[in-house]
Amino acid sequence: MPELRKDPIIGRWVIISTDRAKRPTDFVREGFQNKGGFCPFCTGNESKTPPEVLAYRPSANGNPAPKRDTAGWTLRVVPNKFPALGIEGSMNRQAEGMFDKMNGVGAHEVIIETADHGLSLEHLPERKIEEVFWAFRDRILDLKQDRRFKYILIFKNHGEAAGASLEHSHSQLIALPIVPKQVVEELEGAKQYYIYKERCVFCDIIRQEIDAGVRVVSENQDFVTIAPYAPRFPFETWILPKRHESAFENSSSAMFENLAKALKSLLTKADLVLDTPSYNLVLHTSPLQDPSLEHYHWHIEFMPKLTKTAGFEWGTGFYINPTPPEEAAKYLREANVELAQAVEAHP
Amino acid sequence: MPELRKDPIIGRWVIISTDRAKRPTDFVREGFQNKGGFCPFCTGNESKTPPEVLAYRPSANGNPAPKRDTAGWTLRVVPNKFPALGIEGSMNRQAEGMFDKMNGVGAHEVIIETADHGLSLEHLPERKIEEVFWAFRDRILDLKQDRRFKYILIFKNHGEAAGASLEHSHSQLIALPIVPKQVVEELEGAKQYYIYKERCVFCDIIRQEIDAGVRVVSENQDFVTIAPYAPRFPFETWILPKRHESAFENSSSAMFENLAKALKSLLTKADLVLDTPSYNLVLHTSPLQDPSLEHYHWHIEFMPKLTKTAGFEWGTGFYINPTPPEEAAKYLREANVELAQAVEAHP
Repeated sequence: MPELRKDPIIGRWVIISTDRAKRPTDFVREGFQNKGGFCPFCTGNESKTPPEVLAYRPSANGNPAPKRDTAGWTLRVVPNKFPALGIEGSMNRQAEGMFDKMNGVGAHEVIIETADHGLSLEHLPERKIEEVFWAFRDRILDLKQDRRFKYILIFKNHGEAAGASLEHSHSQLIALPIVPKQVVEELEGAKQYYIYKERCVFCDIIRQEIDAGVRVVSENQDFVTIAPYAPRFPFETWILPKRHESAFENSSSAMFENLAKALKSLLTKADLVLDTPSYNLVLHTSPLQDPSLEHYHWHIEFMPKLTKTAGFEWGTGFYINPTPPEEAAKYLREANVELAQAVEAHP
Repeated sequence: MPELRKDPIIGRWVIISTDRAKRPTDFVREGFQNKGGFCPFCTGNESKTPPEVLAYRPSANGNPAPKRDTAGWTLRVVPNKFPALGIEGSMNRQAEGMFDKMNGVGAHEVIIETADHGLSLEHLPERKIEEVFWAFRDRILDLKQDRRFKYILIFKNHGEAAGASLEHSHSQLIALPIVPKQVVEELEGAKQYYIYKERCVFCDIIRQEIDAGVRVVSENQDFVTIAPYAPRFPFETWILPKRHESAFENSSSAMFENLAKALKSLLTKADLVLDTPSYNLVLHTSPLQDPSLEHYHWHIEFMPKLTKTAGFEWGTGFYINPTPPEEAAKYLREANVELAQAVEAHP
């Protein structure tokens, strides 16, 4: 069973995943595990993953739906074969001398976004990207019923440089028995602002950014895509719903349509401007057991992996960004995504 | 002039270094700038760096000391040619709508640790590593007199994967007009512990770790090297002074002798166990204008760059570590550093 351990100074919880403990010699630069080789996420290899917890299978007119863990799906969610956390058991918080630990109880799932090994998320049709958001929502709503879980982290590592170990397009979900420190800080910061101003800080940012325009990448009826004012990384970009809502899973189906449009547009623009970069996507949403929060506002953060200087940064929490967000936004805004998508449709 | 900008939610200050703004096409994987080519840090190329702010030059018996910015030095400190912050001007804090910014006032210096291009820090004799710590101390004491500066970050990126852009062994120093958020958190966490226990949390950790032994890598008269209880990264290791002291620059010369021994031993062990990894070193010390703090304790953090999974981690502040610190400490503890150093001395 993995362990959650708390740093006694900073108060940060860390997963020590003893089950997949690595010997020093295991750290030799591992590339993609399946470049050109066997892929456990491809259609036909359903038996090579743990049994699915969710799948979308279009049922042909009148025919019975295909069986679980067989081909015919367009999106499939499975437990991670090498989970960072274990789904069984109690938290069992305890001391170890002056230190604090608990059992690494949680869920670690993989959202296989498409059956097609060759397609990246941005190359899926908008309807298929919508399905990915539906899957996020379905899994959050299901896992939320387990009262041991306090937070769900959903993220995507795309490309080797961003930490992906399998090429086939997928996202990951981790349900945690604690709220991560950085989420707590975001919630606390937003709450302080709300106490002072009686307005949501994200709503204020959205208004000011749309007014000013210089950091806006794109906008549709429900979402605005901006380069934030104080980004940690070059070309860091956020997608925010214009209407106030603290929890991702409360979004309506109409909104997912426009979210899919916004994300496909952003990723396509990034491919054009930054030459198909590796990237991380992280969904920022409110803790599971919180009611609707006046002061928090869910959003998606996009971080292309362009520089290697992150080493110093994660050691210090201090960031040096060589690209002003105004310039990044201009490049992305001006990238002709319609042209790129037309080429994609009629190659 | 670079800008310091504050994230309005989290409260994190970020340097936007407009002076060295990068166009998207500049992000093509840059390798070492001087692999086999010209090196501005080598003896003879003193005119290719900004004028030195400090240098150690052994003066031969009776002869006048060599001139500034000429050969003959064993360690040399110069301003960074492409500084992240500018040394001139006032902070000029101001608003930009709802956002906060100030001029990027600060110092950015490079400590060239040796004149010999071919030597890594761990291959320098202990006396030379001591000199590096002396240079850190001398620069801190000098910059401390400038009341605009609140904190000095000293760090080392070694190897391409850890963010180094030049091969010649060097450390960096950044003097900041603010205290970085992660330092504030470390100070605050340590202060809470002190208020509750009336003891320094680091002193307690040192006592418990030495008693238990399982996470100790090595120990000498003044320093203990441990794998921390809740490490973010595999083989993360800390070197702590056994005697309580909050500020690095208050250390005595006798201590630097043992610090050099401890660091050389750790880096040599890491080379043996992890096959000469890229790594980051970060000096954690108290803010410049603070008096001696009862609750804080300076130390050095060592983070080898072994995994690529950091992408997700820096996006979320949540860490999954596949190597328990007890195992990492055991590997490092058992690595035969004396043998390695004997081979180095008599190859």
